[in-house]
Amino acid sequence: MDTLQAYFNTHKDRFLEELFELIRIPSVSSDPNHREDMYKAAEKLRSFLEKAGAENSKVYETAGHPVVYADKIFDPSLPTVMVYGHYDVQPADPLELWETPPFEPQIRKTELHPEGAIFARGADDDKGQMFMHVKAFEAMVAEGVLPCNVKFMIEGEEEIGSPSLGAFCEANKEMLHSDVILVSDTGLINKETPTITTGLRGLSYVQVEVTGPNRDLHSGLYGGGVANPLNILCDMVARLHDENKRITIEGFYDDVLEVSDDERAKMNLAPFDLDEYRKSIGIEEESGETGFTTIERTSIRPTLDLNGIWGGFTGEGAKTVLPSKAFAKISMRLVPNQDPAKISELFEKHFKSLAPKSVKVKVEYHHGGYATVTPVDTPEYKAAEMAMQKTFGKEVIPIRSGGSIPIIALFEKVLGVKSVLMGFGLDSNAIHSPNEHYSLFTFYKGIETIPYYYQFYSELKKS
Amino acid sequence: MDTLQAYFNTHKDRFLEELFELIRIPSVSSDPNHREDMYKAAEKLRSFLEKAGAENSKVYETAGHPVVYADKIFDPSLPTVMVYGHYDVQPADPLELWETPPFEPQIRKTELHPEGAIFARGADDDKGQMFMHVKAFEAMVAEGVLPCNVKFMIEGEEEIGSPSLGAFCEANKEMLHSDVILVSDTGLINKETPTITTGLRGLSYVQVEVTGPNRDLHSGLYGGGVANPLNILCDMVARLHDENKRITIEGFYDDVLEVSDDERAKMNLAPFDLDEYRKSIGIEEESGETGFTTIERTSIRPTLDLNGIWGGFTGEGAKTVLPSKAFAKISMRLVPNQDPAKISELFEKHFKSLAPKSVKVKVEYHHGGYATVTPVDTPEYKAAEMAMQKTFGKEVIPIRSGGSIPIIALFEKVLGVKSVLMGFGLDSNAIHSPNEHYSLFTFYKGIETIPYYYQFYSELKKS
Repeated sequence: MDTLQAYFNTHKDRFLEELFELIRIPSVSSDPNHREDMYKAAEKLRSFLEKAGAENSKVYETAGHPVVYADKIFDPSLPTVMVYGHYDVQPADPLELWETPPFEPQIRKTELHPEGAIFARGADDDKGQMFMHVKAFEAMVAEGVLPCNVKFMIEGEEEIGSPSLGAFCEANKEMLHSDVILVSDTGLINKETPTITTGLRGLSYVQVEVTGPNRDLHSGLYGGGVANPLNILCDMVARLHDENKRITIEGFYDDVLEVSDDERAKMNLAPFDLDEYRKSIGIEEESGETGFTTIERTSIRPTLDLNGIWGGFTGEGAKTVLPSKAFAKISMRLVPNQDPAKISELFEKHFKSLAPKSVKVKVEYHHGGYATVTPVDTPEYKAAEMAMQKTFGKEVIPIRSGGSIPIIALFEKVLGVKSVLMGFGLDSNAIHSPNEHYSLFTFYKGIETIPYYYQFYSELKKS
Repeated sequence: MDTLQAYFNTHKDRFLEELFELIRIPSVSSDPNHREDMYKAAEKLRSFLEKAGAENSKVYETAGHPVVYADKIFDPSLPTVMVYGHYDVQPADPLELWETPPFEPQIRKTELHPEGAIFARGADDDKGQMFMHVKAFEAMVAEGVLPCNVKFMIEGEEEIGSPSLGAFCEANKEMLHSDVILVSDTGLINKETPTITTGLRGLSYVQVEVTGPNRDLHSGLYGGGVANPLNILCDMVARLHDENKRITIEGFYDDVLEVSDDERAKMNLAPFDLDEYRKSIGIEEESGETGFTTIERTSIRPTLDLNGIWGGFTGEGAKTVLPSKAFAKISMRLVPNQDPAKISELFEKHFKSLAPKSVKVKVEYHHGGYATVTPVDTPEYKAAEMAMQKTFGKEVIPIRSGGSIPIIALFEKVLGVKSVLMGFGLDSNAIHSPNEHYSLFTFYKGIETIPYYYQFYSELKKS
């Protein structure tokens, strides 16, 4: 491993330059205007994998954005690690809140990251994290220390719910055969604490449209006599939670597997400072479902959040309009055993039942995915634990994350392979937000940790 | 009056062309980008007044957009009519819903207007209506039949609440001295029914901002643990009305002068077909305060409507963000005796009391104005009644409108002069909406009616 460290030291600036090349391509999967950028990013990534020493590298067409595949097979009798990640990113808006342009990566020092952090959309999620694997692989190949087979499957639709990856996996089961899927798209509790994510929430994402009159009306002439879809939408949204912040959708909690008191107690032992939490996001008081702690509310409990709302006049000044339509984007985070399709249907039925006769309601499904829980008593998991303990010098803490990587459940179903979520992000990295960043410390720490995963995993599988 | 009719017939096409010139200037008072257009429109109007035969025409600077003044004083001992109107217009958005560009006026025939209607922003409100006065004046001067003195005061800030006109009136009391203010900025019940507006609602317009976390957060990592300002805003808005659609703001109804049962009964005799109403705006069911008819809800009752709401991700596709801020524009229509400043304060106090500790709330006042009621037993009112009866051949119906022209109350306070609201719009004209239009029938009917007002008013004042 010493030779690897020397390799890293020699090439660390180039690693960064190459990552920047990838980040500069605005591969926003949800925006049809960036369709061409998706191909550019995929091809750029493919070429990096090839240069790193991978074989069979190819950009695979799908019904949506392409998937990049590459591998390095020494010996079919050795175990195979498949790296999963994504080269697509979230939209960058609101643009005006970025301190530097989202697709022009810059290194800036911050209080939390005196060594510097990369500021850009995708710096963490997931270009930065995914790229650590490409560079760790490059070093292992260059130094001849890769102890097992490796496959890369990097997709371009994670941020829109991976609509094409299921079919891709179905169609390429043999090519994708592996013993474990290794993913870096999650986070650490803090920079010093090695953390492995053992659970992810599922997701149902819908868009609603409430229509009142068939055109915008003058709010003076009609106001008071005609249902205003903006007011109605607010009223309907307000009724989605009760006074204990429980979701009122009928049947919503029916399939929730309650977590045992014992597990909840353990979970709450994780280092977490509520004052620090409040301070870090500038709130006076946290808020959530009665009877659960903040850690529980954001990991083992399902939620319902508006992600966007709009309607009527939103420009400068005043316009006295009673608008025809109101819109909202609403996402529900799900916990193990909740079926995203069923939840979307329950939502639609309930939401429509809240509408008065004076409006019409449309519900459109965006995407969804199941929650997952990773077993911790497997060589796949233990290898990650040992690797992180090695490089951080501290015991690993398993956590359940509130985020969603819906494809993880699908891998298990279609490919029959479990994933290990060894991520190096931080909650404060502002992923999905303006000024997303990724600390150089964690970027290089990830590159250093990954080869240990391969080493320990191969050893555990041999014994 | 026969000579006038001949003059109208000769010049009617030119009248329209000149109006189109004025409409083509996008004088949107609420948008700072149109500041220059306000001057262009004011100067264009001034030149039309001068060409029509007015003297002392001048574009007066104010703290905001300019006021156009002109007059024609024959004999100070004769009565003086002051025409008030406005050359500013509402914003044109949503632009995509216009069938033809908002500032390129076009004549189109519709089912309701087989003779054709002018489609453009400001075609009715108020360029079209105001311009009828300019052209009626031109004809009276040209034919030498103007029976009294005339003044024009046309402002450029009506759509933003006339913030500068009060000071302008204060500073120019003598110049603006008159016996009546004649305004065409209201509507008819329908094309065949002469209607005079005897009441207008007042207005309080506010913008609210709800802030949760200090930056946009990932809704997976934070969702369920942090108050979402979008959900909170919806909840707060929902609580502004009770189950009877009464406004819950403490003290909101305290100063409302209840209208007598007798007057309410009379008001409900006005021709009004609820089925027709529903059909015209495409709703299945009307909605409003329990215990009042649609006519009452939209005229003698105060209201609270959202005019706009926005926050979070509103683009194509899905973004899983828990946003930092949520916004809404909220207007309250007021009835006689409600003080707009007091109502705004009551709103702010109440709205803030609805906020949980997990968010911060800001309330910003836009503009406001008092409601007004016009006496019907004066020569000023009677002249309008006689003029309309003459040209429509039917008895005039007095109505209370739900709209607001806040400046009317101010005229009475500062200049000590009552206004008469003789307007020729129609509810179906879509003012403040895409595809605003103004029928040629009412445009020419207005030009024909106005000289009778001058004639009858002068006769009534002599006797």
